Amino acid sequence: MHIEVICTGDEVLTGKVVNTNFSYISQKLEDFGLSVSWETTVGDDRDSLLLAFQLAGQRADAVIVNGGLGPTVDDLSQETAARAAGVDLVLNEAWFAAMESFFQRRSRVMPPNNRKQAMLPAGAEMIDNPIGTACGFALDIGKARFFFTPGVPRELRRMLEEQIVPRLLVTSGGQTAVHLKRFHSYGIGESHADALLSGVEALVTDGSVKLGFRAHYPQLETKLTARGRDIAEIRGKLAPSEQEVRKRFGNFIFAEDDDTLEGVILAALTSINATLTVVETFTSGQIAARIAHLPGAERVFRQGIVARDLGVVQAAVGLEAADPVGAITIEAATAIARAARRSTGATHALAVLIDVDEGADRIEFAGNVCLAIATERDAVSRRSRVVGGRDWVRLGAVELGLDCLRRYLQGLPVNERIDFEKT
Amino acid sequence: MHIEVICTGDEVLTGKVVNTNFSYISQKLEDFGLSVSWETTVGDDRDSLLLAFQLAGQRADAVIVNGGLGPTVDDLSQETAARAAGVDLVLNEAWFAAMESFFQRRSRVMPPNNRKQAMLPAGAEMIDNPIGTACGFALDIGKARFFFTPGVPRELRRMLEEQIVPRLLVTSGGQTAVHLKRFHSYGIGESHADALLSGVEALVTDGSVKLGFRAHYPQLETKLTARGRDIAEIRGKLAPSEQEVRKRFGNFIFAEDDDTLEGVILAALTSINATLTVVETFTSGQIAARIAHLPGAERVFRQGIVARDLGVVQAAVGLEAADPVGAITIEAATAIARAARRSTGATHALAVLIDVDEGADRIEFAGNVCLAIATERDAVSRRSRVVGGRDWVRLGAVELGLDCLRRYLQGLPVNERIDFEKT
Repeated sequence: MHIEVICTGDEVLTGKVVNTNFSYISQKLEDFGLSVSWETTVGDDRDSLLLAFQLAGQRADAVIVNGGLGPTVDDLSQETAARAAGVDLVLNEAWFAAMESFFQRRSRVMPPNNRKQAMLPAGAEMIDNPIGTACGFALDIGKARFFFTPGVPRELRRMLEEQIVPRLLVTSGGQTAVHLKRFHSYGIGESHADALLSGVEALVTDGSVKLGFRAHYPQLETKLTARGRDIAEIRGKLAPSEQEVRKRFGNFIFAEDDDTLEGVILAALTSINATLTVVETFTSGQIAARIAHLPGAERVFRQGIVARDLGVVQAAVGLEAADPVGAITIEAATAIARAARRSTGATHALAVLIDVDEGADRIEFAGNVCLAIATERDAVSRRSRVVGGRDWVRLGAVELGLDCLRRYLQGLPVNERIDFEKT
Repeated sequence: MHIEVICTGDEVLTGKVVNTNFSYISQKLEDFGLSVSWETTVGDDRDSLLLAFQLAGQRADAVIVNGGLGPTVDDLSQETAARAAGVDLVLNEAWFAAMESFFQRRSRVMPPNNRKQAMLPAGAEMIDNPIGTACGFALDIGKARFFFTPGVPRELRRMLEEQIVPRLLVTSGGQTAVHLKRFHSYGIGESHADALLSGVEALVTDGSVKLGFRAHYPQLETKLTARGRDIAEIRGKLAPSEQEVRKRFGNFIFAEDDDTLEGVILAALTSINATLTVVETFTSGQIAARIAHLPGAERVFRQGIVARDLGVVQAAVGLEAADPVGAITIEAATAIARAARRSTGATHALAVLIDVDEGADRIEFAGNVCLAIATERDAVSRRSRVVGGRDWVRLGAVELGLDCLRRYLQGLPVNERIDFEKT
């Protein structure tokens, strides 16, 4: 099946916004064994949109159009779709009512220009958007089935997964089942991972298992995609490859499939009735922000303390002036974690202190991370130097702190060397 | 001048790599008053590449092709360019010699397959690449001048700026300049903003000013793009529209152009030698995380306190057990902000307390936000009910807290009604 994607909007065409919606769509289709053959980006311009629709309609079996469904004058997708299909726009009463109720539930009056969002090409199939005012729709243009999706990423994602992928899978025919197994790791770079897993695909001799990676620093997602008659057959095929990935990655896998690092930590703490206090400096609340808002965290997350000044950190955790920790060291991190645990009455405390380089941001900009985890029983600590500029140091330190806590809770060593540190 | 960009490569087409080369090219051209009208992404596939070249050659005056110049079998740009132009590939002796010297300087022997990189379509103009082995080249295909560039970002960047933009500027002749003016606001929804600004484009009667929006909840970016002979003429044209946007949006604009809400707050606090403490509950560190890591924040950001339990919050800010604040109210927020300021020795404290709904996440899931800002002199507070699911409540409360602080620091009312609250 020849699938094309058309991305619309001046923001994307002028490069003001990096087109992550496209990479999301393409990756998601790959996950289901479907491939995008051609992508076109055009601006909010009637002639370009029309031509893009016509050309894709000549080449493709299915086309996903992203963006241009908003209420404003520069949102032209419905109008141009109708023109390309040679039909009129008609009010979709069902969606109009859904929008009115959407605004009512928020105690807002629907502005008149939102009506435009319920005007669909005659004959189009409306596609529900449960979290926004832009409904999607499907329509034939040329020889292709077009699927129109909203530009707001979370609305696109939900519509793509719940509504469009299933339709594409039906269209693509009595196709085999596809299953995607995902491993999430921290500390192994993509090329290292690729080398580590050499030969894993070949464990399934019929060539139906495909290995892929997606690096979103600092995490790495490793994907095994398998095809087969049904899910039972696929699971059977995947089992040896899965085992091998787990064996070769070892302690570096922190979660699988839809689980997350913070979710694994929260579950581990919950299961032992533990409570957590977090002390941060340069990560400035990002560690707490990964855990404290999760459902169930209200029973686990005790307190987060953020400060840029070490003296303020010490005072906040109740360290006496007589015990100044001085510089950022693993001893200081341990003292602070212990004091934070005591002063907030938590069972566990994580302290992540960072000494960042002086001067302007640059690719060599680095930070020395000293972190410690304390419980009533013991304390562990780790030191690391993370490079790559201010943002990467911050992101890296957040992940290192969380992953060390995960390792501690799982009884694994916190000091295993990672690819992202300078030693 | 009609300019198109063609991005090539399976990595980009499958979404494995986000296409930042395209946004870079497009933004760079915009900086010089040139605009990309159409972008196409195709994979490492002969037929798709040929068709993409032919179609762009029919439509455009100039086409920038990115990628496919490497030494491996899946690099097909030279070969396909020759086919599209109906010419043979011939060895470019000058580039072959340059590559040999490139390898010699690194004490390496040039692998035989690199010879491919010096095979250019007959009649092509070679474009130097001083930092890599992939030379660029220019060639006419159809009615367009094609410029082929390497996929390695730093090689692309240098070649684009030093060699291709100057050639495009010559071709485009007496080109016009373009300027983009941006306003960042919080509290006005996109359709409301569109209605509020009706007629603003028409203030410039020659139609050279265009209005656009980009909503990234909870912020809204409003853009005025103008064209003219030079930047002085454009600024003159834009002035009345800019004034009108400021007037109609009023207190809702928190920043313009590259400024950010957190940057404006940091600058305002810095200018009065102030220090800030932040107390958060359900926003769980996200407010601190917006400010505390910024360059210069080490002198301003005093402390962040995160807790999910109101009792823990009270204890952390040193409120006596004799003064329990009880429930989440604006009085409680005020008492906590005052106590947090005193106990951490900051000049300013922001407390954002949230009482979230019970039960599973859903679109109607809401939270009652009670926030207060305290200084030695006074305190202000605000109550709001934010809906839209757990994530939106959290994002909304972060922005509301920051924006109220911005308003307070600028002497504006903190209680102006926003579109995102339920009252």
